[in-house]
Amino acid sequence: MPVLTDIATLGTCPPVGGQGEIGLIENAALVWEGGAVAWVGREADLPDEFADLPRESAGGGTVIPGLIDCHTHLAFGGWRAHEFEQKLLGTSYLEIARQGGGIASTMKATREATKDELHDRARGFLDEILRMGVTTVECKSGYGLNVNDELKQLRVYRRLAEEGPQRIESTFLGAHIVPPEYKDDRARYIRLLTEELIPQIANDGLARFCDVFVEDTAYSPEEARTICKAAATHGLRAKLHVDQITDKGGGVLAAELNAASADHLECISEEGIDAMASAGTVAVSLPLATMYLNLESLPARKLIDAGVPVAVATDFNPGSAPSYDLHLALWLACTRQRMTPAEALKGATAYAAKALLRDDIGSLLPGKKADFVVLDAPSVNHWMYHFRPGTAMRTVIGGDTAREKKNTPELSS
Amino acid sequence: MPVLTDIATLGTCPPVGGQGEIGLIENAALVWEGGAVAWVGREADLPDEFADLPRESAGGGTVIPGLIDCHTHLAFGGWRAHEFEQKLLGTSYLEIARQGGGIASTMKATREATKDELHDRARGFLDEILRMGVTTVECKSGYGLNVNDELKQLRVYRRLAEEGPQRIESTFLGAHIVPPEYKDDRARYIRLLTEELIPQIANDGLARFCDVFVEDTAYSPEEARTICKAAATHGLRAKLHVDQITDKGGGVLAAELNAASADHLECISEEGIDAMASAGTVAVSLPLATMYLNLESLPARKLIDAGVPVAVATDFNPGSAPSYDLHLALWLACTRQRMTPAEALKGATAYAAKALLRDDIGSLLPGKKADFVVLDAPSVNHWMYHFRPGTAMRTVIGGDTAREKKNTPELSS
Repeated sequence: MPVLTDIATLGTCPPVGGQGEIGLIENAALVWEGGAVAWVGREADLPDEFADLPRESAGGGTVIPGLIDCHTHLAFGGWRAHEFEQKLLGTSYLEIARQGGGIASTMKATREATKDELHDRARGFLDEILRMGVTTVECKSGYGLNVNDELKQLRVYRRLAEEGPQRIESTFLGAHIVPPEYKDDRARYIRLLTEELIPQIANDGLARFCDVFVEDTAYSPEEARTICKAAATHGLRAKLHVDQITDKGGGVLAAELNAASADHLECISEEGIDAMASAGTVAVSLPLATMYLNLESLPARKLIDAGVPVAVATDFNPGSAPSYDLHLALWLACTRQRMTPAEALKGATAYAAKALLRDDIGSLLPGKKADFVVLDAPSVNHWMYHFRPGTAMRTVIGGDTAREKKNTPELSS
Repeated sequence: MPVLTDIATLGTCPPVGGQGEIGLIENAALVWEGGAVAWVGREADLPDEFADLPRESAGGGTVIPGLIDCHTHLAFGGWRAHEFEQKLLGTSYLEIARQGGGIASTMKATREATKDELHDRARGFLDEILRMGVTTVECKSGYGLNVNDELKQLRVYRRLAEEGPQRIESTFLGAHIVPPEYKDDRARYIRLLTEELIPQIANDGLARFCDVFVEDTAYSPEEARTICKAAATHGLRAKLHVDQITDKGGGVLAAELNAASADHLECISEEGIDAMASAGTVAVSLPLATMYLNLESLPARKLIDAGVPVAVATDFNPGSAPSYDLHLALWLACTRQRMTPAEALKGATAYAAKALLRDDIGSLLPGKKADFVVLDAPSVNHWMYHFRPGTAMRTVIGGDTAREKKNTPELSS
């Protein structure tokens, strides 16, 4: 039962209180026991009962909850580096998809990969992601697009979850695109999803969420309704990829379907924002995808002003967001979407937890999991302002140190 | 005299041939001797005379010339993290400057810092910058803004240059802003620059360039002319901060003054582009500053189409670009400015060397300095596409390994 002291600033990131409310405590101390936070507050106020516990130093850095990446497509075969240059020179995402590139080409490579190959690659990614202080990762299927290969992806995620150290949340995204073999009979594929895959996935506990990509090249809002309603009867909560390239009324749809989150939202309407605010649906902003696709940013300030909780995630995938750098996504949320560092941080902690319907992570409050990161920065604001790699000095998951950096922090130099 | 082999791709980055011409060689080998490149080509074509040399492996990665950051303000006192939040919430850069924040507040902190304090801090920055494969750094004065403190900054750079391992190029930026003590007599400060500081700096060999910030809060084009002409008589070549927030005809001015580079250029006119193209002036794009200040990007494609060489640098400084992440600047040049990875790379190698009037660095061709980086990426395109920190596995300066990363590359996983 250790006490962490010498913390310049600690952000508790409470689940309540609005986007910018991160519960800052200066000169803080943090006590944890049995994997959970036991006490947090000003070091000067440390209760007597904890006074003689062994002390560890945060080196004058900042402590935040373990970061949560609440939207990734972690396990996939191949890369699509050539599409990056195509897009830079003006070929649109939808056009690349129509050419048979895009998701369909990753589907092919993912089907060809063995479960072990997918696992080993995703394992390598998770190790790198841990270096950035990310302690929970949501992982979507959606590159198998048939029974065996969708289950293969989800089983890889289960194995990664069992291995740790990061917490993994799995989402079934069988409705990513319509696979080529069903292109003349979409309804049959949708029946495969609703009558076969969803029941089995629910039965095997392979996912907690069912996601649908609503877009011209993917699924219509009406199809999303069918799929998400079937998922709901099996206990899977909806998530949606919506309003990314065209406004399909995604915000309203997400609210109607009681979705845990609506993700992307670059083109969301005022009506959609209002609907999400009323329903309490989390908006997941994916600024890396916005940049890679050269889109206008989602209207973060409008969402925040309307009271919609805005989470920020990477969308890591081999096409529209081939980066798992959550710190960069947060920096882009600040510089491009005009969110403050505190607002961005809340989006990758308490609100990201909310997007995953988890009330045990994302905040450093008594009883919550002791998942936290010691940053080489004197404040949250400074961490985002002086952007540079390698600021996560120590990452703790469930009370155990999952990673500690060896080289000297800049703070002490 | 070693041979580097097992190189998936090597970009020689020749100084000629246009922005996207980076002289790619697949399955390459590189031979160097006495700090200079002796031979480069396909491994299969390695001449007999080098066949028995000791071999080192690039591990199947990509080899590029050592990166050159051709625009930084490396040594300064203090930070200005609070201004970051102000700017995010809508306060303009010029407004912060008018409030006495901005450059003037860094001037104060820099004057208060001792030479050793400035040195030690900049030393720490350079160590981190080395981790990104940056082997040459241009460093500007401009936070002293009086005789003693400008010389102090430049002497810090000289000491850093003597220490190595990175190459340092110094630029005198006494004309950054008009210091407060001269605000009612700008002409007197300009005389201090032209009659006292420039002669002494030239005499002591403390800088090769003289830079002027042309903007409403700084200097007029006419004042820049006076300063740069005086500098030219002492052998200092002009550089200019121009057309960043308002169009002041900076491109035309840079051409007229035979400047080595014109930097920023978000607001450059068509006329300015034409003038730079005719004069062969390098445009230095600073996309981190563009992002931090929420400006429209400079028209990179127009500049490239007109034949202007576009360099890319960080502008590292505590106000408008508090990040020294050149890899990120290059990624932003791609995603925001629609430059291809090859074009961006040329901007931080051959064309950055051109912005510094150096013909011995920035290209991996026989006779050039053996400054290079081994990247954990199968190609230049992939390096920019799959953006992540820590891709520089080994950095060599003048034939000597300046840094080698210990952990496993992603490539081999």
